[in-house]
Amino acid sequence: MTAGLITDFGLQDAYAAVMKAVILDRCPDARIIDISHDIEPRNVLSAAFVLYSAWNWFPPGTVFLAVVDPGVGTGRRECIVESGGRFCVCPDNGITSLAGRMNKNSRAFRARPEILKQLAAQKPYYAATFDGRDLFAPLAAMMLKLGRDRVCGERIEPVIVREVFSRKDSSGDGIDGYVMHLDRFGNVVTSIHVSDLDSAGAAAGREVRIQAGEAMLPEIQTVSRTYADAVPGGLLAYWGSAGFLEIAVREGNFGYLHKVKTGNPVKLRYFHA
Amino acid sequence: MTAGLITDFGLQDAYAAVMKAVILDRCPDARIIDISHDIEPRNVLSAAFVLYSAWNWFPPGTVFLAVVDPGVGTGRRECIVESGGRFCVCPDNGITSLAGRMNKNSRAFRARPEILKQLAAQKPYYAATFDGRDLFAPLAAMMLKLGRDRVCGERIEPVIVREVFSRKDSSGDGIDGYVMHLDRFGNVVTSIHVSDLDSAGAAAGREVRIQAGEAMLPEIQTVSRTYADAVPGGLLAYWGSAGFLEIAVREGNFGYLHKVKTGNPVKLRYFHA
Amino acid sequence: MTAGLITDFGLQDAYAAVMKAVILDRCPDARIIDISHDIEPRNVLSAAFVLYSAWNWFPPGTVFLAVVDPGVGTGRRECIVESGGRFCVCPDNGITSLAGRMNKNSRAFRARPEILKQLAAQKPYYAATFDGRDLFAPLAAMMLKLGRDRVCGERIEPVIVREVFSRKDSSGDGIDGYVMHLDRFGNVVTSIHVSDLDSAGAAAGREVRIQAGEAMLPEIQTVSRTYADAVPGGLLAYWGSAGFLEIAVREGNFGYLHKVKTGNPVKLRYFHA
Repeated sequence: MTAGLITDFGLQDAYAAVMKAVILDRCPDARIIDISHDIEPRNVLSAAFVLYSAWNWFPPGTVFLAVVDPGVGTGRRECIVESGGRFCVCPDNGITSLAGRMNKNSRAFRARPEILKQLAAQKPYYAATFDGRDLFAPLAAMMLKLGRDRVCGERIEPVIVREVFSRKDSSGDGIDGYVMHLDRFGNVVTSIHVSDLDSAGAAAGREVRIQAGEAMLPEIQTVSRTYADAVPGGLLAYWGSAGFLEIAVREGNFGYLHKVKTGNPVKLRYFHA
Repeated sequence: MTAGLITDFGLQDAYAAVMKAVILDRCPDARIIDISHDIEPRNVLSAAFVLYSAWNWFPPGTVFLAVVDPGVGTGRRECIVESGGRFCVCPDNGITSLAGRMNKNSRAFRARPEILKQLAAQKPYYAATFDGRDLFAPLAAMMLKLGRDRVCGERIEPVIVREVFSRKDSSGDGIDGYVMHLDRFGNVVTSIHVSDLDSAGAAAGREVRIQAGEAMLPEIQTVSRTYADAVPGGLLAYWGSAGFLEIAVREGNFGYLHKVKTGNPVKLRYFHA
Repeated sequence: MTAGLITDFGLQDAYAAVMKAVILDRCPDARIIDISHDIEPRNVLSAAFVLYSAWNWFPPGTVFLAVVDPGVGTGRRECIVESGGRFCVCPDNGITSLAGRMNKNSRAFRARPEILKQLAAQKPYYAATFDGRDLFAPLAAMMLKLGRDRVCGERIEPVIVREVFSRKDSSGDGIDGYVMHLDRFGNVVTSIHVSDLDSAGAAAGREVRIQAGEAMLPEIQTVSRTYADAVPGGLLAYWGSAGFLEIAVREGNFGYLHKVKTGNPVKLRYFHA
């Protein structure tokens, strides 16, 4: 039984550890793997990418616990998303937008009302700000211990974050997408996936022009294979390890230098001389 | 057998991992959970809060290993604190000030002299700066393996950090406390606990005035229930997940904006129009 | 079976977690311990020190997985280094420079060609930037599961980073070395080891002069035993927990104050009045 945790709680507080203690209290044999607790505070889009990039590498049956939850204490719903034989317990705010679509037969549920009622009754009377501990971690433990059929209730359509999707531009001459995530190195992960382009378009060496946010990037003229295809300090675009187009400065920090933020638009155009 | 680790060692060095290796060498079946290694360097007060917020969520029998140790290499004593059936191995510098008082029948011990002597003999001759590895981790492993009665010696009164306590102000018209901790989001955790106020005073909606450090906060007029009770960018106070009064900017960083530091005084006053 | 992970991947992405999932997929009983994922991006020298400081504390048979890999996607080789009964799977870029020399009978290997071929065939066609996931983690899992003899092929001389070594200066009057690492507290770890000096020279109290980078540090006149030997804010040098000379500001951040960087030269001279 594997649990994978992703939050914006950071590691300077006990928040993540308390969620682990809650899971292990109900489910002592669980193997808990931290995916990340350093998601930018409240950045659901970034979390959606990071969750996606881990999803299918975890064993079938994994229960992910994803708590980036700016709506804690409001009426936002909890949900449990199933995709490719793995599950995610999370607030219904779009955090599974990518992972929920990467496998066929994905579906989403609310928890059973009697379980929600029971958990609400156990909550400390004063606490309305830590559903990670009081709601989501117990639900994840129940998913591990009791399984989907005893925890999941009503089917729902989960909230989707639109910036995880790319689309052909109107002229058919390229792809429009968004910045989904900045990684540790300042590399920018876009929503343009290698499978969005036909094989000719995705091929290394095909001449392209790229715009990220306000920045035109004429220095990038092809999609490279790896960092070493640029000189140190030089710009490059390449298909990243999760299959999405990434933009980087070799041995530098692209996101910082170009003030790129998640949600910024990205354009890839085929070049006609 | 569960060990819970809390230090200010950060995660850019091997310090925390070496302590884990030392524990697992003596106690291969231990389950080790990181609480935090990102306590602000040398901030015992902040660590005392973080340890408290995790304590009772961990299973009975847990041995915490808490090393925020500005006095390493001096004559400061080690101690082992018992509270609610859980234990903490740490320097005797106040790090258990809150956790040691949260349960009845708390008590504190030094380690047995023969154990200290044995560990001192095994220490590398040049090393006077890493008692986490050379003293506290072996003691924690012994606590897990041998238990309290074979490791603990003389009873002591542990050092207490005064800023973890609040008190009624002289007019009886409010509570005075301190900033204990800033969390990852810049939310400020004070030492004013929901149980310090009578139930009328603690009730959501009761009109109050709050001062934190130098900052009067007239925008806060009641204790809220959750972040969504303020507009984005707005100030609020609420009972946090560990029962202490917290002050935050919704979707912002209160501690940074108001230059709040741990140890700053906090005043809560009932408002009389 | 223990795996120890050290990378510059940070914890805001899923990179480290995906490597763990890959190891556990092939080797479900592995116990994985994070050493650090917060190595400064691309800083092989710093990683070499951190790996060294953990190496012999981990149990014999441990397989370390060390991925600080600025050359990913180029022709740089993988290697497997054996030292003191422990192993490290890593790019052949010098990351084991210290650990590989700390024990007798160290040696290094490439992986068997048929294994490399098999892993290359399983790699996603677009991915040339995450050998941590696609090459090194599977190799580490194979080392844990199959052992050295079935994974290691050709013996090689691994790349060495020269800044991990110190040398007597030409006058015989001191030792020259380098800054290898800055720790979480801004303490500077040099490549001058306590065993480099004769016992008289290494003794606490022996009068010395120290220069780090451009900064002469006349305030330091002896090697201290611990932080408390300096006043708060005062400079000191001492033998650190791994046996190397360290330079610090008590309750301050030496590296930040003096703009010290890894690779800067360090000189220790005996003082003659």
